[in-house]
Amino acid sequence: MTRFVSSGRVVLVGAGPGDPELLTLRAARALAEADVVLHDALVSDAILQLASHAELISVGKIGGGPRVEQDAIHALLLEQARTGKNVVRLKGGDSYVFGRGGEEVLFLEEHGIGVEVVPGITSAIAAAALGSVPVTHRGISTHFTVLTGHPMEGGEEELERAWANAARLGGTLVFVMGLRNLARISEVLRTNGLEGSTPVAVIQDGSRETQRVALGDLDSIAEKVRDAGLRAPALVVVGHVVDLQPTIARARAIYHQQSA
Amino acid sequence: MTRFVSSGRVVLVGAGPGDPELLTLRAARALAEADVVLHDALVSDAILQLASHAELISVGKIGGGPRVEQDAIHALLLEQARTGKNVVRLKGGDSYVFGRGGEEVLFLEEHGIGVEVVPGITSAIAAAALGSVPVTHRGISTHFTVLTGHPMEGGEEELERAWANAARLGGTLVFVMGLRNLARISEVLRTNGLEGSTPVAVIQDGSRETQRVALGDLDSIAEKVRDAGLRAPALVVVGHVVDLQPTIARARAIYHQQSA
Repeated sequence: MTRFVSSGRVVLVGAGPGDPELLTLRAARALAEADVVLHDALVSDAILQLASHAELISVGKIGGGPRVEQDAIHALLLEQARTGKNVVRLKGGDSYVFGRGGEEVLFLEEHGIGVEVVPGITSAIAAAALGSVPVTHRGISTHFTVLTGHPMEGGEEELERAWANAARLGGTLVFVMGLRNLARISEVLRTNGLEGSTPVAVIQDGSRETQRVALGDLDSIAEKVRDAGLRAPALVVVGHVVDLQPTIARARAIYHQQSA
Repeated sequence: MTRFVSSGRVVLVGAGPGDPELLTLRAARALAEADVVLHDALVSDAILQLASHAELISVGKIGGGPRVEQDAIHALLLEQARTGKNVVRLKGGDSYVFGRGGEEVLFLEEHGIGVEVVPGITSAIAAAALGSVPVTHRGISTHFTVLTGHPMEGGEEELERAWANAARLGGTLVFVMGLRNLARISEVLRTNGLEGSTPVAVIQDGSRETQRVALGDLDSIAEKVRDAGLRAPALVVVGHVVDLQPTIARARAIYHQQSA
Protein backbone atom coordinates (compact mmCIF):
# COMPACT_ATOMS: atom_id res chain seq x y z
CA MET A 1 0.00 0.00 0.00
CA THR A 2 1.38 3.40 -0.94
CA ARG A 3 0.34 6.23 1.21
CA PHE A 4 0.79 9.96 0.94
CA VAL A 5 3.34 11.11 3.49
CA SER A 6 2.56 14.68 4.49
CA SER A 7 5.17 16.71 6.25
CA GLY A 8 4.52 16.82 9.94
CA ARG A 9 5.43 14.80 12.96
CA VAL A 10 4.70 14.53 16.64
CA VAL A 11 6.74 13.47 19.66
CA LEU A 12 4.50 11.66 22.14
CA VAL A 13 6.09 12.23 25.55
CA GLY A 14 5.35 10.72 28.94
CA ALA A 15 5.78 13.38 31.63
CA GLY A 16 6.12 10.99 34.56
CA PRO A 17 4.25 11.21 37.87
CA GLY A 18 4.52 14.95 38.48
CA ASP A 19 7.93 15.88 39.87
CA PRO A 20 9.85 17.54 36.98
CA GLU A 21 13.01 15.76 38.16
CA LEU A 22 11.35 12.50 37.07
CA LEU A 23 11.18 13.57 33.44
CA THR A 24 13.64 11.75 31.23
CA LEU A 25 16.52 13.64 29.62
CA ARG A 26 14.89 12.96 26.25
CA ALA A 27 11.56 14.37 27.42
CA ALA A 28 13.19 17.51 28.81
CA ARG A 29 14.99 18.03 25.50
CA ALA A 30 11.81 17.48 23.48
CA LEU A 31 10.07 20.13 25.59
CA ALA A 32 12.96 22.59 25.26
CA GLU A 33 12.87 22.20 21.46
CA ALA A 34 9.07 22.24 21.11
CA ASP A 35 7.17 24.92 19.21
CA VAL A 36 3.81 23.62 20.38
CA VAL A 37 2.90 21.44 23.38
CA LEU A 38 -0.52 19.82 23.62
CA HIS A 39 -0.80 18.68 27.22
CA ASP A 40 -3.23 16.94 29.54
CA ALA A 41 -4.73 18.75 32.51
CA LEU A 42 -2.73 16.74 35.05
CA VAL A 43 0.72 17.83 33.82
CA SER A 44 2.25 20.22 36.35
CA ASP A 45 3.24 23.85 35.69
CA ALA A 46 6.82 23.13 36.69
CA ILE A 47 7.04 20.67 33.80
CA LEU A 48 5.31 22.96 31.31
CA GLN A 49 7.83 25.69 32.10
CA LEU A 50 10.54 23.52 30.54
CA ALA A 51 8.85 24.14 27.18
CA SER A 52 10.27 27.63 27.38
CA HIS A 53 9.50 28.89 23.88
CA ALA A 54 6.46 26.73 23.06
CA GLU A 55 2.83 27.59 22.67
CA LEU A 56 1.02 25.58 25.36
CA ILE A 57 -2.37 24.10 24.54
CA SER A 58 -4.28 22.33 27.31
CA VAL A 59 -6.45 19.57 25.88
CA GLY A 60 -7.63 18.31 29.26
CA LYS A 61 -11.06 19.82 29.06
CA ILE A 62 -11.92 19.85 25.38
CA GLY A 63 -15.28 18.78 24.02
CA GLY A 64 -18.51 17.38 25.35
CA GLY A 65 -17.65 13.89 26.54
CA PRO A 66 -14.92 11.25 26.48
CA ARG A 67 -15.33 10.34 22.81
CA VAL A 68 -15.90 13.84 21.44
CA GLU A 69 -12.95 14.92 23.53
CA GLN A 70 -10.64 12.33 22.03
CA ASP A 71 -11.79 13.17 18.49
CA ALA A 72 -11.19 16.85 19.14
CA ILE A 73 -7.68 16.10 20.44
CA HIS A 74 -6.97 14.07 17.30
CA ALA A 75 -8.12 16.91 15.04
CA LEU A 76 -6.05 19.46 16.93
CA LEU A 77 -2.95 17.25 16.88
CA LEU A 78 -3.29 16.75 13.15
CA GLU A 79 -3.79 20.45 12.52
CA GLN A 80 -0.68 21.33 14.53
CA ALA A 81 1.44 18.54 13.05
CA ARG A 82 0.62 19.74 9.53
CA THR A 83 2.08 23.17 10.25
CA GLY A 84 5.48 21.43 10.25
CA LYS A 85 6.31 22.82 13.68
CA ASN A 86 7.95 20.77 16.43
CA VAL A 87 4.85 19.36 18.10
CA VAL A 88 5.00 17.58 21.46
CA ARG A 89 2.01 15.68 22.80
CA LEU A 90 2.58 15.54 26.56
CA LYS A 91 0.78 13.09 28.83
CA GLY A 92 1.03 12.37 32.54
CA GLY A 93 2.93 9.20 33.45
CA ASP A 94 3.53 6.97 30.44
CA SER A 95 1.49 7.38 27.24
CA TYR A 96 0.78 3.66 26.97
CA VAL A 97 -0.35 3.02 30.55
CA PHE A 98 -4.00 4.10 30.34
CA GLY A 99 -2.84 7.19 28.49
CA ARG A 100 -4.67 6.54 25.21
CA GLY A 101 -1.36 7.13 23.46
CA GLY A 102 -1.93 4.23 21.09
CA GLU A 103 -5.17 5.75 19.80
CA GLU A 104 -3.40 8.98 18.94
CA VAL A 105 -0.56 7.18 17.17
CA LEU A 106 -3.00 5.11 15.10
CA PHE A 107 -4.94 8.22 14.11
CA LEU A 108 -1.83 10.17 13.14
CA GLU A 109 -0.38 7.27 11.17
CA GLU A 110 -3.61 7.05 9.21
CA HIS A 111 -3.00 10.66 8.16
CA GLY A 112 0.64 10.14 7.26
CA ILE A 113 2.05 11.88 10.34
CA GLY A 114 5.17 10.39 11.93
CA VAL A 115 5.22 9.75 15.66
CA GLU A 116 8.13 9.11 18.01
CA VAL A 117 7.24 7.75 21.44
CA VAL A 118 9.25 8.74 24.52
CA PRO A 119 8.41 6.47 27.47
CA GLY A 120 7.70 8.15 30.80
CA ILE A 121 7.86 6.99 34.40
CA THR A 122 4.44 5.55 35.11
CA SER A 123 2.76 6.44 38.39
CA ALA A 124 1.53 2.86 38.58
CA ILE A 125 5.03 1.82 39.68
CA ALA A 126 6.66 5.08 40.76
CA ALA A 127 3.93 6.37 43.07
CA ALA A 128 4.14 3.03 44.86
CA ALA A 129 7.96 3.27 45.07
CA LEU A 130 7.86 6.86 46.31
CA GLY A 131 5.27 5.79 48.87
CA SER A 132 7.85 3.16 49.97
CA VAL A 133 6.09 0.16 48.44
CA PRO A 134 8.08 -2.02 45.99
CA VAL A 135 5.77 -3.73 43.49
CA THR A 136 7.92 -6.88 43.49
CA HIS A 137 10.04 -8.34 46.28
CA ARG A 138 11.83 -11.67 46.41
CA GLY A 139 9.90 -14.16 48.53
CA ILE A 140 6.79 -11.95 48.65
CA SER A 141 5.68 -11.13 45.12
CA THR A 142 7.29 -12.02 41.82
CA HIS A 143 4.57 -10.54 39.63
CA PHE A 144 2.28 -7.55 39.58
CA THR A 145 -0.87 -6.53 37.72
CA VAL A 146 -1.89 -2.98 36.89
CA LEU A 147 -5.64 -2.36 36.49
CA THR A 148 -8.00 0.56 36.40
CA GLY A 149 -10.26 1.12 39.38
CA HIS A 150 -12.66 3.14 37.31
CA PRO A 151 -14.45 2.12 34.10
CA MET A 152 -12.70 3.85 31.20
CA GLU A 153 -15.20 2.60 28.67
CA GLY A 154 -18.42 0.62 28.67
CA GLY A 155 -18.68 -2.07 31.25
CA GLU A 156 -18.56 -1.86 34.99
CA GLU A 157 -19.22 -5.58 34.79
CA GLU A 158 -16.18 -6.31 32.66
CA LEU A 159 -14.08 -4.22 35.01
CA GLU A 160 -15.24 -6.15 38.06
CA ARG A 161 -14.54 -9.43 36.28
CA ALA A 162 -10.96 -8.28 35.76
CA TRP A 163 -10.67 -7.40 39.48
CA ALA A 164 -12.02 -10.85 40.40
CA ASN A 165 -9.59 -12.66 38.10
CA ALA A 166 -6.74 -10.53 39.39
CA ALA A 167 -7.64 -11.54 42.96
CA ARG A 168 -7.25 -15.18 41.91
CA LEU A 169 -3.87 -14.43 40.32
CA GLY A 170 -2.60 -12.78 43.50
CA GLY A 171 0.82 -11.15 43.66
CA THR A 172 0.78 -7.36 43.82
CA LEU A 173 -2.35 -5.65 42.46
CA VAL A 174 -2.08 -2.00 41.50
CA PHE A 175 -5.22 0.04 40.82
CA VAL A 176 -4.92 3.31 38.96
CA MET A 177 -7.85 5.68 39.52
CA GLY A 178 -9.05 3.38 42.29
CA LEU A 179 -9.94 5.82 45.01
CA ARG A 180 -13.60 6.41 44.25
CA ASN A 181 -14.38 2.69 43.98
CA LEU A 182 -12.11 1.61 46.81
CA ALA A 183 -14.85 0.02 48.93
CA ARG A 184 -16.16 -1.92 45.95
CA ILE A 185 -12.68 -3.03 44.85
CA SER A 186 -12.00 -4.31 48.38
CA GLU A 187 -15.26 -6.20 48.38
CA VAL A 188 -14.68 -7.84 44.99
CA LEU A 189 -11.15 -8.89 45.99
CA ARG A 190 -12.39 -10.40 49.25
CA THR A 191 -15.21 -12.34 47.63
CA ASN A 192 -12.70 -13.75 45.14
CA GLY A 193 -10.18 -15.26 47.47
CA LEU A 194 -8.10 -12.54 49.10
CA GLU A 195 -8.13 -12.38 52.91
CA GLY A 196 -9.66 -9.31 54.53
CA SER A 197 -6.27 -8.93 56.26
CA THR A 198 -4.41 -8.47 52.94
CA PRO A 199 -2.46 -5.22 53.35
CA VAL A 200 -3.30 -2.19 51.22
CA ALA A 201 -1.52 1.13 50.67
CA VAL A 202 -3.11 4.18 49.09
CA ILE A 203 -0.70 6.82 47.80
CA GLN A 204 -2.09 10.26 46.94
CA ASP A 205 -0.11 12.60 44.62
CA GLY A 206 2.89 10.27 44.28
CA SER A 207 6.13 12.28 43.80
CA ARG A 208 4.55 15.66 44.54
CA GLU A 209 4.97 17.72 47.69
CA THR A 210 1.38 16.91 48.59
CA GLN A 211 2.13 13.16 48.58
CA ARG A 212 0.35 11.25 51.37
CA VAL A 213 0.15 7.55 52.21
CA ALA A 214 -2.59 5.63 54.03
CA LEU A 215 -2.08 2.03 55.15
CA GLY A 216 -4.67 -0.58 56.05
CA ASP A 217 -6.03 -3.87 54.85
CA LEU A 218 -8.89 -4.91 52.59
CA ASP A 219 -11.28 -4.77 55.55
CA SER A 220 -10.23 -1.34 56.80
CA ILE A 221 -8.72 0.68 53.95
CA ALA A 222 -11.86 2.36 52.61
CA GLU A 223 -12.65 3.77 56.04
CA LYS A 224 -9.03 4.77 56.74
CA VAL A 225 -8.77 6.65 53.47
CA ARG A 226 -12.05 8.42 54.16
CA ASP A 227 -10.93 9.35 57.69
CA ALA A 228 -7.59 10.63 56.42
CA GLY A 229 -9.36 12.67 53.74
CA LEU A 230 -7.20 11.43 50.86
CA ARG A 231 -8.24 12.62 47.42
CA ALA A 232 -7.53 11.74 43.77
CA PRO A 233 -5.21 11.18 42.01
CA ALA A 234 -4.26 8.23 44.17
CA LEU A 235 -2.79 4.80 43.57
CA VAL A 236 -4.10 1.70 45.38
CA VAL A 237 -1.61 -1.12 46.00
CA VAL A 238 -2.84 -4.46 47.35
CA GLY A 239 -0.58 -7.27 48.54
CA HIS A 240 2.02 -8.32 51.06
CA VAL A 241 4.71 -6.03 49.64
CA VAL A 242 2.81 -3.35 51.59
CA ASP A 243 4.10 -4.97 54.81
CA LEU A 244 7.54 -3.58 53.91
CA GLN A 245 6.28 0.01 53.79
CA PRO A 246 7.10 1.14 57.35
CA THR A 247 10.71 -0.10 57.17
CA ILE A 248 11.37 1.34 53.72
CA ALA A 249 9.74 4.63 54.74
CA ARG A 250 12.10 4.71 57.75
CA ALA A 251 15.14 4.32 55.47
CA ARG A 252 13.88 7.33 53.52
CA ALA A 253 13.32 9.33 56.70
CA ILE A 254 16.91 8.60 57.83
CA TYR A 255 18.17 9.77 54.45
CA HIS A 256 16.37 13.10 54.68
CA GLN A 257 17.30 13.57 58.33
CA GLN A 258 20.94 13.36 57.28
CA SER A 259 20.51 15.84 54.45
CA ALA A 260 18.81 18.37 56.74
CA MET B 1 12.47 1.57 69.31
CA THR B 2 15.52 3.78 69.32
CA ARG B 3 18.19 2.91 66.84
CA PHE B 4 21.71 4.19 66.34
CA VAL B 5 21.80 6.36 63.23
CA SER B 6 25.25 6.16 61.67
CA SER B 7 26.29 8.72 59.14
CA GLY B 8 25.98 7.38 55.66
CA ARG B 9 23.37 7.24 52.98
CA VAL B 10 22.70 5.75 49.61
CA VAL B 11 20.71 6.87 46.56
CA LEU B 12 19.12 3.86 44.88
CA VAL B 13 18.75 4.82 41.23
CA GLY B 14 16.94 3.11 38.36
CA ALA B 15 18.95 3.55 35.15
CA GLY B 16 16.13 2.77 32.73
CA PRO B 17 16.25 0.37 29.78
CA GLY B 18 19.70 1.31 28.41
CA ASP B 19 19.53 4.48 26.33
CA PRO B 20 21.12 7.24 28.50
CA GLU B 21 18.44 9.65 27.21
CA LEU B 22 15.91 7.60 29.18
CA LEU B 23 17.56 8.40 32.50
CA THR B 24 15.55 10.80 34.63
CA LEU B 25 16.92 14.27 35.34
CA ARG B 26 17.19 13.25 38.99
CA ALA B 27 19.17 10.12 38.10
CA ALA B 28 21.57 12.07 35.88
CA ARG B 29 22.13 14.56 38.69
CA ALA B 30 22.71 11.81 41.26
CA LEU B 31 25.33 10.27 38.96
CA ALA B 32 27.03 13.62 38.35
CA GLU B 33 27.28 14.21 42.11
CA ALA B 34 28.30 10.65 43.03
CA ASP B 35 31.62 9.79 44.63
CA VAL B 36 31.02 6.06 44.28
CA VAL B 37 28.67 4.14 41.98
CA LEU B 38 27.93 0.47 42.60
CA HIS B 39 26.33 -0.76 39.40
CA ASP B 40 24.89 -3.91 37.89
CA ALA B 41 26.51 -5.57 34.89
CA LEU B 42 23.69 -4.57 32.51
CA VAL B 43 24.10 -0.80 32.95
CA SER B 44 25.62 0.66 29.77
CA ASP B 45 28.96 2.50 29.55
CA ALA B 46 27.24 5.59 28.15
CA ILE B 47 25.29 5.85 31.40
CA LEU B 48 28.29 5.18 33.62
CA GLN B 49 30.18 8.01 31.93
CA LEU B 50 27.68 10.45 33.42
CA ALA B 51 29.21 9.63 36.81
CA SER B 52 32.18 11.70 35.71
CA HIS B 53 34.13 11.91 38.96
CA ALA B 54 32.93 8.72 40.66
CA GLU B 55 34.69 5.50 41.44
CA LEU B 56 32.78 2.79 39.52
CA ILE B 57 32.32 -0.59 41.15
CA SER B 58 30.65 -3.34 39.14
CA VAL B 59 28.75 -5.70 41.41
CA GLY B 60 27.30 -7.79 38.60
CA LYS B 61 29.63 -10.72 39.05
CA ILE B 62 30.43 -10.79 42.73
CA GLY B 63 30.45 -13.99 44.77
CA GLY B 64 29.65 -17.64 44.27
CA GLY B 65 25.91 -17.76 43.67
CA PRO B 66 22.74 -15.70 43.85
CA ARG B 67 22.56 -15.53 47.63
CA VAL B 68 26.26 -15.09 48.33
CA GLU B 69 26.27 -12.46 45.65
CA GLN B 70 23.45 -10.47 47.24
CA ASP B 71 25.10 -10.70 50.69
CA ALA B 72 28.37 -9.48 49.22
CA ILE B 73 26.60 -6.54 47.55
CA HIS B 74 24.98 -5.65 50.87
CA ALA B 75 28.33 -5.72 52.67
CA LEU B 76 29.98 -3.56 50.02
CA LEU B 77 27.10 -1.05 50.00
CA LEU B 78 27.30 -0.74 53.78
CA GLU B 79 31.07 -0.31 53.72
CA GLN B 80 30.82 2.44 51.12
CA ALA B 81 27.88 4.18 52.78
CA ARG B 82 29.78 4.36 56.07
CA THR B 83 32.59 6.34 54.47
CA GLY B 84 30.12 9.24 54.29
CA LYS B 85 30.69 9.63 50.55
CA ASN B 86 27.90 10.21 48.02
CA VAL B 87 27.05 6.63 47.18
CA VAL B 88 24.77 5.72 44.27
CA ARG B 89 23.48 2.20 43.83
CA LEU B 90 22.61 1.97 40.13
CA LYS B 91 20.35 -0.73 38.71
CA GLY B 92 19.01 -1.39 35.23
CA GLY B 93 15.36 -0.43 34.68
CA ASP B 94 13.54 0.28 37.93
CA SER B 95 14.93 -0.95 41.26
CA TYR B 96 11.60 -2.35 42.39
CA VAL B 97 10.69 -4.29 39.23
CA PHE B 98 12.65 -7.51 39.80
CA GLY B 99 15.61 -5.36 40.78
CA ARG B 100 15.99 -6.61 44.37
CA GLY B 101 16.01 -2.97 45.42
CA GLY B 102 13.74 -3.67 48.39
CA GLU B 103 16.18 -6.19 49.84
CA GLU B 104 18.98 -3.63 49.76
CA VAL B 105 16.85 -0.94 51.36
CA LEU B 106 15.79 -3.29 54.18
CA PHE B 107 19.41 -4.30 54.81
CA LEU B 108 20.66 -0.72 54.87
CA GLU B 109 17.83 0.46 57.13
CA GLU B 110 18.74 -2.29 59.57
CA HIS B 111 22.20 -0.74 59.78
CA GLY B 112 20.95 2.81 60.18
CA ILE B 113 21.78 3.90 56.63
CA GLY B 114 19.36 6.26 54.91
CA VAL B 115 18.14 5.43 51.41
CA GLU B 116 16.46 7.61 48.81
CA VAL B 117 14.83 5.79 45.90
CA VAL B 118 14.80 7.31 42.41
CA PRO B 119 12.36 5.45 40.14
CA GLY B 120 13.61 4.45 36.69
CA ILE B 121 11.90 3.64 33.41
CA THR B 122 11.23 -0.08 33.55
CA SER B 123 11.98 -2.15 30.46
CA ALA B 124 8.82 -4.12 31.20
CA ILE B 125 6.79 -1.22 29.79
CA ALA B 126 9.35 0.82 27.83
CA ALA B 127 10.88 -2.00 25.78
CA ALA B 128 7.34 -2.85 24.68
CA ALA B 129 6.63 0.82 23.83
CA LEU B 130 9.89 1.23 21.92
CA GLY B 131 9.09 -1.97 20.07
CA SER B 132 5.77 -0.28 19.12
CA VAL B 133 3.56 -2.28 21.49
CA PRO B 134 1.39 -0.34 23.98
CA VAL B 135 0.70 -2.43 27.11
CA THR B 136 -2.83 -1.04 27.39
CA HIS B 137 -5.19 0.13 24.66
CA ARG B 138 -8.84 1.11 24.90
CA GLY B 139 -11.07 -1.67 23.64
CA ILE B 140 -8.23 -4.21 23.60
CA SER B 141 -6.62 -4.40 27.02
CA THR B 142 -7.35 -2.39 30.13
CA HIS B 143 -4.91 -4.25 32.38
CA PHE B 144 -1.48 -5.80 32.19
CA THR B 145 0.54 -8.21 34.28
CA VAL B 146 4.32 -8.29 34.54
CA LEU B 147 5.88 -11.65 35.42
CA THR B 148 9.28 -13.30 35.29
CA GLY B 149 9.88 -15.93 32.66
CA HIS B 150 12.74 -17.38 34.63
CA PRO B 151 12.69 -18.65 38.21
CA MET B 152 14.37 -16.03 40.41
CA GLU B 153 14.19 -18.19 43.50
CA GLY B 154 13.09 -21.70 44.38
CA GLY B 155 10.16 -23.03 42.49
CA GLU B 156 9.74 -23.63 38.79
CA GLU B 157 6.36 -24.99 39.85
CA GLU B 158 5.27 -21.79 41.56
CA LEU B 159 6.39 -19.82 38.53
CA GLU B 160 4.35 -21.96 36.15
CA ARG B 161 1.33 -21.62 38.43
CA ALA B 162 1.64 -17.85 38.12
CA TRP B 163 1.82 -18.13 34.31
CA ALA B 164 -1.29 -20.33 34.32
CA ASN B 165 -3.25 -17.93 36.53
CA ALA B 166 -2.11 -15.00 34.40
CA ALA B 167 -3.43 -16.79 31.30
CA ARG B 168 -6.84 -16.98 32.99
CA LEU B 169 -6.70 -13.27 33.84
CA GLY B 170 -5.91 -12.34 30.23
CA GLY B 171 -5.21 -8.76 29.22
CA THR B 172 -1.61 -8.03 28.29
CA LEU B 173 1.00 -10.38 29.76
CA VAL B 174 4.58 -9.18 29.93
CA PHE B 175 7.39 -11.61 30.67
CA VAL B 176 10.74 -10.26 31.77
CA MET B 177 13.65 -12.70 31.24
CA GLY B 178 11.30 -14.88 29.21
CA LEU B 179 13.43 -15.77 26.22
CA ARG B 180 15.00 -18.99 27.40
CA ASN B 181 11.68 -20.44 28.54
CA LEU B 182 9.63 -19.08 25.65
CA ALA B 183 8.44 -22.46 24.35
CA ARG B 184 7.39 -23.53 27.83
CA ILE B 185 5.65 -20.20 28.57
CA SER B 186 3.70 -20.51 25.31
CA GLU B 187 2.69 -24.05 26.20
CA VAL B 188 1.50 -23.15 29.71
CA LEU B 189 -0.51 -20.20 28.40
CA ARG B 190 -2.18 -22.36 25.73
CA THR B 191 -3.09 -25.14 28.13
CA ASN B 192 -4.64 -22.54 30.43
CA GLY B 193 -7.08 -20.92 28.09
CA LEU B 194 -5.23 -18.67 25.64
CA GLU B 195 -5.68 -19.44 21.93
CA GLY B 196 -2.63 -20.56 19.99
CA SER B 197 -3.35 -17.60 17.71
CA THR B 198 -2.86 -15.06 20.52
CA PRO B 199 -0.28 -12.58 19.17
CA VAL B 200 3.16 -12.32 20.77
CA ALA B 201 5.98 -9.81 20.34
CA VAL B 202 9.54 -10.38 21.52
CA ILE B 203 11.69 -7.26 21.86
CA GLN B 204 15.45 -7.70 22.22
CA ASP B 205 17.58 -4.85 23.68
CA GLY B 206 14.68 -2.41 24.00
CA SER B 207 15.89 1.23 23.56
CA ARG B 208 19.39 0.27 22.41
CA GLU B 209 20.75 0.47 18.89
CA THR B 210 20.72 -3.31 18.76
CA GLN B 211 16.94 -3.37 19.36
CA ARG B 212 15.12 -6.04 17.36
CA VAL B 213 11.49 -7.18 17.31
CA ALA B 214 10.03 -10.56 16.38
CA LEU B 215 6.28 -11.05 15.92
CA GLY B 216 4.28 -14.26 15.98
CA ASP B 217 1.63 -16.02 18.01
CA LEU B 218 1.70 -18.52 20.86
CA ASP B 219 1.95 -21.37 18.35
CA SER B 220 4.77 -19.91 16.30
CA ILE B 221 6.79 -17.45 18.41
CA ALA B 222 9.38 -19.84 19.87
CA GLU B 223 10.39 -20.99 16.39
CA LYS B 224 10.34 -17.47 14.93
CA VAL B 225 12.59 -16.16 17.68
CA ARG B 226 14.97 -19.09 17.18
CA ASP B 227 15.04 -18.53 13.42
CA ALA B 228 15.66 -14.80 13.86
CA GLY B 229 18.46 -15.52 16.32
CA LEU B 230 17.19 -13.14 19.02
CA ARG B 231 19.12 -13.17 22.27
CA ALA B 232 18.69 -11.95 25.86
CA PRO B 233 17.88 -9.50 27.29
CA ALA B 234 14.47 -9.64 25.65
CA LEU B 235 10.92 -8.85 26.67
CA VAL B 236 8.00 -11.11 25.75
CA VAL B 237 4.61 -9.43 25.32
CA VAL B 238 1.50 -11.58 24.88
CA GLY B 239 -1.94 -10.24 23.93
CA HIS B 240 -3.98 -8.50 21.29
CA VAL B 241 -2.20 -5.16 21.78
CA VAL B 242 0.51 -6.80 19.66
CA ASP B 243 -1.88 -6.56 16.67
CA LEU B 244 -1.24 -2.78 16.71
CA GLN B 245 2.53 -3.23 16.31
CA PRO B 246 2.84 -2.91 12.51
CA THR B 247 0.81 0.33 12.37
CA ILE B 248 2.58 1.94 15.32
CA ALA B 249 5.96 0.87 13.91
CA ARG B 250 5.00 2.54 10.63
CA ALA B 251 4.25 5.82 12.44
CA ARG B 252 7.73 5.63 13.91
CA ALA B 253 9.28 4.90 10.52
CA ILE B 254 7.54 7.95 9.01
CA TYR B 255 8.89 10.08 11.85
CA HIS B 256 12.47 9.00 11.24
CA GLN B 257 12.12 9.27 7.48
CA GLN B 258 11.20 12.91 7.96
CA SER B 259 14.14 13.59 10.27
CA ALA B 260 16.60 12.03 7.83
